[in-house]
Amino acid sequence: MAGAELRVGVIGCGRWAGWAHLPGWTRDERCQVVAVCDRDEGLVQAAADRFGVADAFTDHRRVIERDDVDVIDVVTGDEEHFTLTMAALEAGKHVLCEKPVAHDYRDTLRARDLAASEGLGTKVGFTFRYSPAVRYMKELIDEGWVGTPYIYNAYEQNSQWIDPQTPLRQVPAGVDADRIRVSSLEGYGAPVIDLGHWFMDADLTSVVGVLRNFVPERMIRETGTMMRANIDDGDIFIGEFAGGAICSVQSSFVTVGNYPGIEVRVYGSEGALIARLVEEFGVMETLKGARPDAVEFVDLEVPARLFPPGGDVHEPWPSLYYSNLTANFVDEILAGGDKNEGNFSDAAWVQEVINAVEQSHFDRGWVGLPLPR
Amino acid sequence: MAGAELRVGVIGCGRWAGWAHLPGWTRDERCQVVAVCDRDEGLVQAAADRFGVADAFTDHRRVIERDDVDVIDVVTGDEEHFTLTMAALEAGKHVLCEKPVAHDYRDTLRARDLAASEGLGTKVGFTFRYSPAVRYMKELIDEGWVGTPYIYNAYEQNSQWIDPQTPLRQVPAGVDADRIRVSSLEGYGAPVIDLGHWFMDADLTSVVGVLRNFVPERMIRETGTMMRANIDDGDIFIGEFAGGAICSVQSSFVTVGNYPGIEVRVYGSEGALIARLVEEFGVMETLKGARPDAVEFVDLEVPARLFPPGGDVHEPWPSLYYSNLTANFVDEILAGGDKNEGNFSDAAWVQEVINAVEQSHFDRGWVGLPLPR
Amino acid sequence: MAGAELRVGVIGCGRWAGWAHLPGWTRDERCQVVAVCDRDEGLVQAAADRFGVADAFTDHRRVIERDDVDVIDVVTGDEEHFTLTMAALEAGKHVLCEKPVAHDYRDTLRARDLAASEGLGTKVGFTFRYSPAVRYMKELIDEGWVGTPYIYNAYEQNSQWIDPQTPLRQVPAGVDADRIRVSSLEGYGAPVIDLGHWFMDADLTSVVGVLRNFVPERMIRETGTMMRANIDDGDIFIGEFAGGAICSVQSSFVTVGNYPGIEVRVYGSEGALIARLVEEFGVMETLKGARPDAVEFVDLEVPARLFPPGGDVHEPWPSLYYSNLTANFVDEILAGGDKNEGNFSDAAWVQEVINAVEQSHFDRGWVGLPLPR
Amino acid sequence: MAGAELRVGVIGCGRWAGWAHLPGWTRDERCQVVAVCDRDEGLVQAAADRFGVADAFTDHRRVIERDDVDVIDVVTGDEEHFTLTMAALEAGKHVLCEKPVAHDYRDTLRARDLAASEGLGTKVGFTFRYSPAVRYMKELIDEGWVGTPYIYNAYEQNSQWIDPQTPLRQVPAGVDADRIRVSSLEGYGAPVIDLGHWFMDADLTSVVGVLRNFVPERMIRETGTMMRANIDDGDIFIGEFAGGAICSVQSSFVTVGNYPGIEVRVYGSEGALIARLVEEFGVMETLKGARPDAVEFVDLEVPARLFPPGGDVHEPWPSLYYSNLTANFVDEILAGGDKNEGNFSDAAWVQEVINAVEQSHFDRGWVGLPLPR
Repeated sequence: MAGAELRVGVIGCGRWAGWAHLPGWTRDERCQVVAVCDRDEGLVQAAADRFGVADAFTDHRRVIERDDVDVIDVVTGDEEHFTLTMAALEAGKHVLCEKPVAHDYRDTLRARDLAASEGLGTKVGFTFRYSPAVRYMKELIDEGWVGTPYIYNAYEQNSQWIDPQTPLRQVPAGVDADRIRVSSLEGYGAPVIDLGHWFMDADLTSVVGVLRNFVPERMIRETGTMMRANIDDGDIFIGEFAGGAICSVQSSFVTVGNYPGIEVRVYGSEGALIARLVEEFGVMETLKGARPDAVEFVDLEVPARLFPPGGDVHEPWPSLYYSNLTANFVDEILAGGDKNEGNFSDAAWVQEVINAVEQSHFDRGWVGLPLPR
Repeated sequence: MAGAELRVGVIGCGRWAGWAHLPGWTRDERCQVVAVCDRDEGLVQAAADRFGVADAFTDHRRVIERDDVDVIDVVTGDEEHFTLTMAALEAGKHVLCEKPVAHDYRDTLRARDLAASEGLGTKVGFTFRYSPAVRYMKELIDEGWVGTPYIYNAYEQNSQWIDPQTPLRQVPAGVDADRIRVSSLEGYGAPVIDLGHWFMDADLTSVVGVLRNFVPERMIRETGTMMRANIDDGDIFIGEFAGGAICSVQSSFVTVGNYPGIEVRVYGSEGALIARLVEEFGVMETLKGARPDAVEFVDLEVPARLFPPGGDVHEPWPSLYYSNLTANFVDEILAGGDKNEGNFSDAAWVQEVINAVEQSHFDRGWVGLPLPR
Repeated sequence: MAGAELRVGVIGCGRWAGWAHLPGWTRDERCQVVAVCDRDEGLVQAAADRFGVADAFTDHRRVIERDDVDVIDVVTGDEEHFTLTMAALEAGKHVLCEKPVAHDYRDTLRARDLAASEGLGTKVGFTFRYSPAVRYMKELIDEGWVGTPYIYNAYEQNSQWIDPQTPLRQVPAGVDADRIRVSSLEGYGAPVIDLGHWFMDADLTSVVGVLRNFVPERMIRETGTMMRANIDDGDIFIGEFAGGAICSVQSSFVTVGNYPGIEVRVYGSEGALIARLVEEFGVMETLKGARPDAVEFVDLEVPARLFPPGGDVHEPWPSLYYSNLTANFVDEILAGGDKNEGNFSDAAWVQEVINAVEQSHFDRGWVGLPLPR
Repeated sequence: MAGAELRVGVIGCGRWAGWAHLPGWTRDERCQVVAVCDRDEGLVQAAADRFGVADAFTDHRRVIERDDVDVIDVVTGDEEHFTLTMAALEAGKHVLCEKPVAHDYRDTLRARDLAASEGLGTKVGFTFRYSPAVRYMKELIDEGWVGTPYIYNAYEQNSQWIDPQTPLRQVPAGVDADRIRVSSLEGYGAPVIDLGHWFMDADLTSVVGVLRNFVPERMIRETGTMMRANIDDGDIFIGEFAGGAICSVQSSFVTVGNYPGIEVRVYGSEGALIARLVEEFGVMETLKGARPDAVEFVDLEVPARLFPPGGDVHEPWPSLYYSNLTANFVDEILAGGDKNEGNFSDAAWVQEVINAVEQSHFDRGWVGLPLPR
């Protein structure tokens, strides 16, 4: 691996790093993870051992300042994403960052602008863009399989917190208990908002939606008691794309179903495609299509080239999809051109849509996009 | 059949009467179709011959005024529904009427009030309430299978007019070409709006939606030329139910897929159910369910008692569902009690929702229900 | 008076009839009040005596069916307006009716259509159209004095019920106490909505407004106790006219100020006019104007021809304005042409605007006009 | 004047500085203007001569960095307000700044926070808060003269640009000509939005408004040609205050009338007050009031103590009001306590309301406040 073309430093060694990020990087022969970092010494050492990484740090500065690192992968808790991202960009590194890059899309745009001015690539953890079924669906759409897209429908939902006893993190102090706070929409709506943008190849010009708190009282992890937690645990919005297409998007973590719980549909003038990313009986995903002259939906075979080496529909989706994600970022960096999908600009766009939906809930009406800056 | 308990007169002998209504009535031993009527002498004679009906008329008064008729079935063109319905009710007959009963829900309410004051049963052609899968889904919901319902999602769509060359009826004169007219929402949205009301057992309190004209120019049947036809050929709305549940409803006749093109989902605190009424490869419908402790969706077997005598999932859906509908009406009439589902009250409610969605499109905002009277 | 050209029957002999209607008719030499009617025998006899009317009835049919009556004036309680109006039109009489003609503008339109088909004149008690200041303002606008009108501002407000002890009629049974009911908007907003339509010579295309119940508990006349009365006692709306002009309209009966409490302003490209119909220190009204080259507002003298015979700005406004109203109706009837201002069409339009404002309050958004029929 | 308690540096010596700011400071014996500054050498020298200021600079740093200056007064072009304000606060000076402090209210809040952390006073050029009539109106409201305030109505309008030939500054490059840009609302709406906040002592919780471009083509100063200038030259909004009061606010620079063109009304449970700040026939302002038991409006005499020394209602309003403003700021600084009205917090609040009204125009609906941060 001495001849690897890219050297990666991974900051954050929690569960998701171990399931998705590190398996992705280490599966790719073109890159080498040269350092891992986590505040928790036990976690970082375990990751280094498991994935064969030479250096393990508890101070992220030790990774970011290394001259031999080309890419920084930020997979820490949300609150550190933005600071670490800015530090890494300032140090001249390409950056992969888990979502959200920042809570305010204006900050994400600042990070994007910094990257652009330095000629650096950015990538956000939009895992589901890299599902083989979803990538094939995008290829088919681009080739005209559906004709002019009319409607996009998206669900991302699961039943992780359907049981009020499943513990939730404490509500921050000082929050207005009567005002519902965005939760599912940000965590689960974001990925399918991103897919809509990508598939439909158009910006949303207006949205209107509702947030709901279906399970009002929940077990709080820190205290072990039931408490009012006025968070959005289910939501639906509709939107209009520039050009005339429309969409509905639904997210929830109290709707029965397995992970990742994604279903995306595109109906167009020449066909319809439905990808379903729901692990059921050992199969991770399916893609179905129908055409005006063959209106009964049939399974479409996703080409093998869209799977990571050795992967198939039975491989657990975190590594299946993330291996595609990291490989795609490596492709883009090595190509050195303008191609850079699922980047910070996309992340800012998604965050702005989320903010607009939130505002539409409180204002009880359509909200135009882009938001006033 | 001389001993039949109910005697039926059917007004209108077009395609839908032959596919759905007449097979329904004639399959039921408790009733006898004693007269059919159509302005077109050929049509009415063919229907009488095919279904073994003694009397065939071209003047509806001949049927309505017969003392020996208990039920009038109105299955004519839309514009005659209301007049015939009122005439039949005034003559003291129970009435089954194809939707819409009237274009203005206030008229439908007048018909309902007349029926109520005369102690007559009413029924609207909400075909899909009578699908075995849908009826079983309703039973399961009523038994608490899904717990508290959170979200209702509904689609009714097909690709009947996806090809601009498929001829459409002439746009009425005097219509404002710049103002989109409700079409798909009324024809295809209505049945799943009705199912939402029935499943969720709650009224909608507000809706917001968009109408779209995806195919702007169409072949006009009367003239054979392409013409601008600014009709809603696709639409989505979201709504809030009394009690807090929410929904999304989508209808279209330019989205690829087979008939009837219905998919309805209910997500609740204890389970999720998805019925799909789409004829594919000889199967008319499926019902799937998942529970919090078994999150992978599985097929649920619909009990045989919910199918009409001799019917199964392979029987063409028009007669499969309509036989259940007519049998259900016969049950209600013979029982003589208050039970009378899918009646004119339901039809007026559905029409009011449609009107509210239409207004929400033009006013660009939420519209409260009930509408101001 | 035997040679009078028009013969009038007045139904309703309450306070407003005595202050406004009867003084108007009896001041006009071209007409003769031949019959008065009121259910209250004392009231009707007093009116007949005071205004020298030959016949006094307690049954309105006695008036309506008279062949020698040309005009019926309906000035009863609101709930009888529509029935009496329809009866009078069916009997072939011209009709002056106090507002509202009907609670549902669709009924008002039916009355209008009946009148039109019979060639009868209609007039609604839009008192303030007939103020000399307002009529001169309209003449000036029509002559181009303000150029293109940009903005219309209107107030109609007084402090009649500012004191919660001022008794109010009982709230109807069965009313939802949590839902504010239109009150001031209908009683006091209507006249200035009408003036806006007339001055701006354009229809409103959309409105958005708020209703408020500032005084929540009130003395109820029938019971003498304080009670929750959730009625709109103050409201504001803004609107857009076809052509681009905009407006704000405010009404209230809990805002300090004297009767009639009207102020209407038109700002245009060439001037601004402000009429104030507020009795203060014995003066009923003023009209002020300013021009781009003389921006300080000055009093404009209203021509004497716009006052009724013998009237001036010191005459109490009810008879001052109503004498102009009745004279104007007499002019129109005797002329026999198409000219018929302040008619049932205007009343229906005003009522539709009120309904739209009410709906905009509940729907929290703009409502387009005309409303869906 | 050697013994003056406060020393002031004024940056910007244009027309408004000469009419309002410098007359204010120099009229107050407690302070001394020690330096003036303007990029234009002629302007700064003329100001120094006219107002007897010792030092005149063309570089603002020369003023800001002086240790002997206590207060910086920023009265330059809009685009420099924020930078100069921040520089002055960082140098430890109290700051009076013309509005807008910044175009983004988040920046104004940053300036406010900086001032708070340094214990510095801030003041914004809300001229009309300091009118004697307005201050007396506020005193009366605080004393309970109007009781509970129900409605606030405000106008700020004039006819400065009613003539399309009156030259306007060039539209910035890159602007979307089809999207109306806020202009009158920011320039003329701001002061009366501030007065509403102050009088009603409550925050707005939601607003909805319309912007209009009544004069579409205008003479452009830089080019001398007529050009499309899609700016808001007239607007109205309605709003809801926390606690239930409501308002309407109108601004325009194409509505006939003299400067300042302000009219503000408060209607409450115990009285109504109307201040009119419109110069007409040599009188700058009037204040009228009415009470439930005396409903005819009468002039209220404004106490002499509310006028600057030697001033009366005939003094030109710029110096009349601004002398009160500067004296009020001197009072606050010398008192050294928490009292600091019309400060940057107020400015940010006003700007946020303006942004919300702008958004409500484009989103065609109510917008809640505060805006999402």
